[in-house]
Amino acid sequence: MPLAEQITAMGRAAREASRILGVALPEARNRALLTLADLLESHVTEILAANKMDTDAAERAGMDAPRLARLRVTPAVIAEMALACREVAAQHDPLGALETQWRRPNGLLVGKMRVPLGVVAMVFESRPNVTIEASILCLKSGNAAILRGGSEALHSNLCLAGLVRDALAEAGLPAACVQVVPVPEREAVNLLCSLDEYIDVMIPRGGEPLIRAVTEAAAMPVLKHYKGVCHAFIDSDADLEAAVEIVFNSKVQRPSACNALECLLVHSDVAREFLPKVAARLGAAGVEFRACEKSLPFLGPTAKALAEGDFGTEFLDLILAVKVLESREHALDEALAHIAQYGSNHTEIICTNNHKHAMRFMQAADASMVATNASTRFNDGGQLGLGAEIGISTSKLHAYGPMGVKELTTTKFVVFGEGQVRG
Amino acid sequence: MPLAEQITAMGRAAREASRILGVALPEARNRALLTLADLLESHVTEILAANKMDTDAAERAGMDAPRLARLRVTPAVIAEMALACREVAAQHDPLGALETQWRRPNGLLVGKMRVPLGVVAMVFESRPNVTIEASILCLKSGNAAILRGGSEALHSNLCLAGLVRDALAEAGLPAACVQVVPVPEREAVNLLCSLDEYIDVMIPRGGEPLIRAVTEAAAMPVLKHYKGVCHAFIDSDADLEAAVEIVFNSKVQRPSACNALECLLVHSDVAREFLPKVAARLGAAGVEFRACEKSLPFLGPTAKALAEGDFGTEFLDLILAVKVLESREHALDEALAHIAQYGSNHTEIICTNNHKHAMRFMQAADASMVATNASTRFNDGGQLGLGAEIGISTSKLHAYGPMGVKELTTTKFVVFGEGQVRG
Repeated sequence: MPLAEQITAMGRAAREASRILGVALPEARNRALLTLADLLESHVTEILAANKMDTDAAERAGMDAPRLARLRVTPAVIAEMALACREVAAQHDPLGALETQWRRPNGLLVGKMRVPLGVVAMVFESRPNVTIEASILCLKSGNAAILRGGSEALHSNLCLAGLVRDALAEAGLPAACVQVVPVPEREAVNLLCSLDEYIDVMIPRGGEPLIRAVTEAAAMPVLKHYKGVCHAFIDSDADLEAAVEIVFNSKVQRPSACNALECLLVHSDVAREFLPKVAARLGAAGVEFRACEKSLPFLGPTAKALAEGDFGTEFLDLILAVKVLESREHALDEALAHIAQYGSNHTEIICTNNHKHAMRFMQAADASMVATNASTRFNDGGQLGLGAEIGISTSKLHAYGPMGVKELTTTKFVVFGEGQVRG
Repeated sequence: MPLAEQITAMGRAAREASRILGVALPEARNRALLTLADLLESHVTEILAANKMDTDAAERAGMDAPRLARLRVTPAVIAEMALACREVAAQHDPLGALETQWRRPNGLLVGKMRVPLGVVAMVFESRPNVTIEASILCLKSGNAAILRGGSEALHSNLCLAGLVRDALAEAGLPAACVQVVPVPEREAVNLLCSLDEYIDVMIPRGGEPLIRAVTEAAAMPVLKHYKGVCHAFIDSDADLEAAVEIVFNSKVQRPSACNALECLLVHSDVAREFLPKVAARLGAAGVEFRACEKSLPFLGPTAKALAEGDFGTEFLDLILAVKVLESREHALDEALAHIAQYGSNHTEIICTNNHKHAMRFMQAADASMVATNASTRFNDGGQLGLGAEIGISTSKLHAYGPMGVKELTTTKFVVFGEGQVRG
């Protein structure tokens, strides 16, 4: 079958399956999730063997170590997948009930019922466990899923998709509830992007080129985030010991994450005391500083002078831009203006004990998560208490921040009448 | 200034204004709304004079009567605009408070704060009162607005925009909170569509060609609905007298509306009794029937045989497609399948006294509003109790159904910590 027909057929099958899945009982969807957990645990050998085909090929092709690490599935990763299935199954069911209802003057009962989006297509890179995460979040939320992982992970993804299919069969649900695109061709993504008749939303997850390509090609809405350029503002009233730990955790715990800190903004009153502590604590972890003129003297001999373009850059590495604010009186305004100019609507934090400043920052900083006195690294579905997440949205439509099961649903208006007509 | 620079400057100014408007006090936003109501009432002569320039030019250009009627502003229309300003001002303020908050095991307080989208651009046709409706909904929700009405309404829109600007000044808010594109060039729309740095969402309102053009060109998310192909299923248990009135109201009250009925699906058990009543009541109002073979004999001598393409067509006129369902036992399934195939996710209703059928239909029919025993015409922000609406969304992302003030906002995560870091 030509590729275009094959992908279109997948779209059509997903739409049909979504109609059945969307009204299936919670127990059927949960049974699929629990069965999948068992199947993952009983098929460790098969999964590892399929994954080895991918990693061997990748190694032969000279893939770099970080990507290879993301591609590799271990028994621990499989155990985490099984755990995620059980956790999501245990979550409150999101579908079918009226969230709110009110009565109109003419007696109509108007309510909002939470319903699935329909068909979700996800395009992602490298990490095969996304196949399982996306499958279980879509199943829980009643959405049919079409998954397109990286071609380098095709054997792994198809093996995992086979287990999902078996779990669906066991639960009496259509196999087309979860489909993995079984071919490596790049053109498959463009074909998916054209199927707005069958696919309700595209979710690209990966590097910026992938996300831009999907956003440009997609005829349907796209949920995405491009990048996280996250700032911390250290106010003159901050508890400096706590602030150092927050900055350390934000920058060092996982520098490659989108919620890692990229730029530190410091009130001039505390620069002299605070920055040497930062230099010592983060410097010992290998962090390289890109320092403004005022901060450079306090950041040790290895600090580099700030270069053009360092502000607004997502380093994704052990690099931190540092700026001491010019204004003493209006440092908060200056920090907010800097964030408005260079931030990416992802995560912005303030360290302060000044209540007015904290409340002002929380209102005015425009980001999917804002925090006082807490690490940027908390901008994560699991950390915030949403359960598993399918991504973090930095555009404001539909979802702003981590997207869990609820963000894969919508509400429709449900009206109970007794013969009312409009006057 | 070249057009591209001019439109870009509007986008930049809107983004800057949105930062001020987004944190302005409710009393400032409401004062602008109440001042605008007063200004509309004290400038009736000026508004009518500006509108006359548009309608005179349109008449000379041979505009058809329905479009001309939409373009014309009357004292009654101005009074409605002023009323809408006061009603929206009186609504509960949507911004700034935490809608929900929970505590994490580590003590973090996590909440969701309702915030504006930022900058909303709206492209619309003909009706100048949309300038006021869009302005007040955006002001109430804290969004800066860029409005692009039809070139045929430019004098009217600029006059109304002048009053909005005066109201903003009176409330101490930046003039760029509401801007009307002051030039008629079509290219302005494409330029707006490219400004994803400054504009968070595009809302096209008008005919399908306009909506498709904006959707295709827009680099940012689009909120839209293409069309309303609305169905009514008359079950064997329906109260037929009430059903006739519901069908009459749905089809006849305003046939040009997107929530008007386009196709009637009838259980075969009641076709013989029900359809002659429909023929009499709707026929007297001039409705033309496009009838399937089984319904044709019951719909009177003027009924036409159903033609290819009548199912799934938005007639926007006094035309109704009619189908008697084949199955007696599974008529509900058949109706739902018909709706899944031909519906447009807009409005679907059932007339029945069978509780199981009603509940099943409400769950399974996939539309922004589903109803039992009530007219399709209730799918409207005002009728459902949302207050003024900026449009009806038939895509499921962000909003599904009528969009009021709340649908012009989003939530961000707001986290209060005491030095927590991620483990």
